[in-house]
Amino acid sequence: MTALQETGQKAVQAKYEVQKLSEKEKNRALLTIAEALVTETDRILAANEKDLARAEEKGMKAGLIDRLRLTEERIKGMAEGIEKVTQLPDPVGELLETIHRPNGLVIEKRRVPLGVVGIIYESRPNVTADAFSLCFKSGNAVILKGGSDALYSNKAIVSVIREGLEKSGVTEDAISFIDATDRAVTMEFMKMKEYVDVLIPRGGAGLIRSVVENSTIPVIETGTGNCHIYIDEDADLAKAIPIIINAKTQRLGVCNACESLVVHEKIREKLLPDLAKALSEKSVEIRGDEKIGEVINCVPATEEDYGTEYLDAIISMKTVKNVDEAIAHINKYNTKHSEAIITENREHAEKFLNEVDAACVYVNASTRFTDGFEFGFGAEIGISTQKLHARGPMGLRELTSYKYRITGNGQIRP
Amino acid sequence: MTALQETGQKAVQAKYEVQKLSEKEKNRALLTIAEALVTETDRILAANEKDLARAEEKGMKAGLIDRLRLTEERIKGMAEGIEKVTQLPDPVGELLETIHRPNGLVIEKRRVPLGVVGIIYESRPNVTADAFSLCFKSGNAVILKGGSDALYSNKAIVSVIREGLEKSGVTEDAISFIDATDRAVTMEFMKMKEYVDVLIPRGGAGLIRSVVENSTIPVIETGTGNCHIYIDEDADLAKAIPIIINAKTQRLGVCNACESLVVHEKIREKLLPDLAKALSEKSVEIRGDEKIGEVINCVPATEEDYGTEYLDAIISMKTVKNVDEAIAHINKYNTKHSEAIITENREHAEKFLNEVDAACVYVNASTRFTDGFEFGFGAEIGISTQKLHARGPMGLRELTSYKYRITGNGQIRP
Repeated sequence: MTALQETGQKAVQAKYEVQKLSEKEKNRALLTIAEALVTETDRILAANEKDLARAEEKGMKAGLIDRLRLTEERIKGMAEGIEKVTQLPDPVGELLETIHRPNGLVIEKRRVPLGVVGIIYESRPNVTADAFSLCFKSGNAVILKGGSDALYSNKAIVSVIREGLEKSGVTEDAISFIDATDRAVTMEFMKMKEYVDVLIPRGGAGLIRSVVENSTIPVIETGTGNCHIYIDEDADLAKAIPIIINAKTQRLGVCNACESLVVHEKIREKLLPDLAKALSEKSVEIRGDEKIGEVINCVPATEEDYGTEYLDAIISMKTVKNVDEAIAHINKYNTKHSEAIITENREHAEKFLNEVDAACVYVNASTRFTDGFEFGFGAEIGISTQKLHARGPMGLRELTSYKYRITGNGQIRP
Repeated sequence: MTALQETGQKAVQAKYEVQKLSEKEKNRALLTIAEALVTETDRILAANEKDLARAEEKGMKAGLIDRLRLTEERIKGMAEGIEKVTQLPDPVGELLETIHRPNGLVIEKRRVPLGVVGIIYESRPNVTADAFSLCFKSGNAVILKGGSDALYSNKAIVSVIREGLEKSGVTEDAISFIDATDRAVTMEFMKMKEYVDVLIPRGGAGLIRSVVENSTIPVIETGTGNCHIYIDEDADLAKAIPIIINAKTQRLGVCNACESLVVHEKIREKLLPDLAKALSEKSVEIRGDEKIGEVINCVPATEEDYGTEYLDAIISMKTVKNVDEAIAHINKYNTKHSEAIITENREHAEKFLNEVDAACVYVNASTRFTDGFEFGFGAEIGISTQKLHARGPMGLRELTSYKYRITGNGQIRP
């Protein structure tokens, strides 16, 4: 038995304990952990210093180092995040449906935890506490595999969480951390179907692709967002420009940022000059097709641009003749995340809502609203871009499955 | 572009058409197809003859040849199956939730089709019509990859379905059939993530394992059932014996048949003699542990027996000291399909329902009820044994996803 299999076995053992905990017991443990994170700030910061020193040695970019850095403030933020999760309703046990069959069988469909959730993530160490608290509140055990850059920080956070669990009388194995950074271990983890019920990758497109290609555990794909805004011929420009600027520039590096505009050719001349000015004030580079270039200065867009999630101060623009062409373009290039139409034409809006294939489709609003808090769900484990199981913001409910409980009095099948 | 990629592209084109069809349009097409299957009986039987001749040449077992054989009656059964699907409610468009946000955004969560469903299945040609009708009624396009043994039959059925679609004014590409039997094509199909939204294998454990290991498309695992019945110390034997005989012998080769008994040691002497007699009347071989062997004649059971889905006239038996040990044994060896407890003790029943990890858990009823029709859902595409997306019998609703439709009037994220 490998070390990893042992971890798997312990997590399975733990899942049976965690799924039995009451909401009260789970909240009490979470509050104890939140407090412990604050109390143990120095220990966590000391571990983080080691990661930061190594990162600087390696010549890591300033932006990435900033994501890696913990401060007293950020640790307090992690603790507050956990406290917020205690205020969310416990989804476990919810009765989804009751069926009374003519033969007297009573079938109850009830929400149950998924079991063991595996999470593979990249640099930011705050994911450790966030992911744990959501999985735990929804009754799951969790196995985390963090990025090598944050190894010391993650280990320190996990050990504080485990101490908090122990103090609360809950099995420490409700959280496990894979203390290895080599690829072979990650590959082995992705094949641990026997122990892990679902695997969620959190990170860049490369990580997600690798998990999808190699995992035998069911995967939930999250986070890749090549999001579009279509500016219809019947758009209200007073809405269009602020929405585009917000969706593109409010935060550049997030999955629900707008990466591409689809522009009705009849609105080009009204829209583009003012829009180009507003984008240029935010230092956003425009890459457009020929018809865009006829109206404003831009870099010529390539096919590749239309398929690129820039996560940067660049936006592509494509002209279309009508809403059908816009929908076809979006369905060809999007990643099924968030798509918006700006229009005052109800028929066009309805068509767009129906026919664009994405988790979230918007009329006259910014794509930046695709977010657990903005939807009123509270914290989320990620934004699902697949259609199986969960789509869009994944909160506590989306970390559960269901079970049919059937009660009889001796029924047999004729 | 390979032939398979072309098939994928056409299916994607078709999914956008199929998802727009009204319930009426879908039902009309299904009824036309049902009629066409009956009208074209001779053509289908002629194709089936070719498969049967090849099977006999190859020396296929009589049981398998019987599964492969079509008759006028069986084709009529296929048509009636399709007619029944027209009577099931269309799940597409169902409003699952409406959220009014303080900023004025209105978020609607609505049921949408999955898109393109891929199905890889083994010999029985009736799956072709069944799978199509369920996927089509739930608004999906379907790509089928049938077993080589039924190739001629499947092709004939698909061509009749396509003709029926055309006659109804619906794109023929709502159904595609992969006309190839080599493994390389199957492997390519399992990687067509760009075109296929979900892949459902229907068949033996080997097929399912291969799909899980190789697919990059999200998979729904169906059908493996190592199902247990636990006979508690407080069991009513008047219920226990009929339920066990029903679950084991009503149909041997099905996934919800009972393969293993877990017996409280205190009930051994009361239960086993009568049970052994009843099982022997049905020619069922018993493989038991030592404590079973103390009471009745049996073959000694091995560890391997406990993990085996026999699909045959064999049953394994294991004694336990209490309900906790029974639950632990079941959770170790089961395939998360269907598990039952026979008891008059409510506390034990409740514990079993809560703690056994399976799609369907029963108190005092046969595991054979895990079935779409028996649950009142109508026809099913399979019994899911995973926790992601759908668990247990998968009907029309389980062939859908959802989408968030958000309507605003210019909202941007602060």
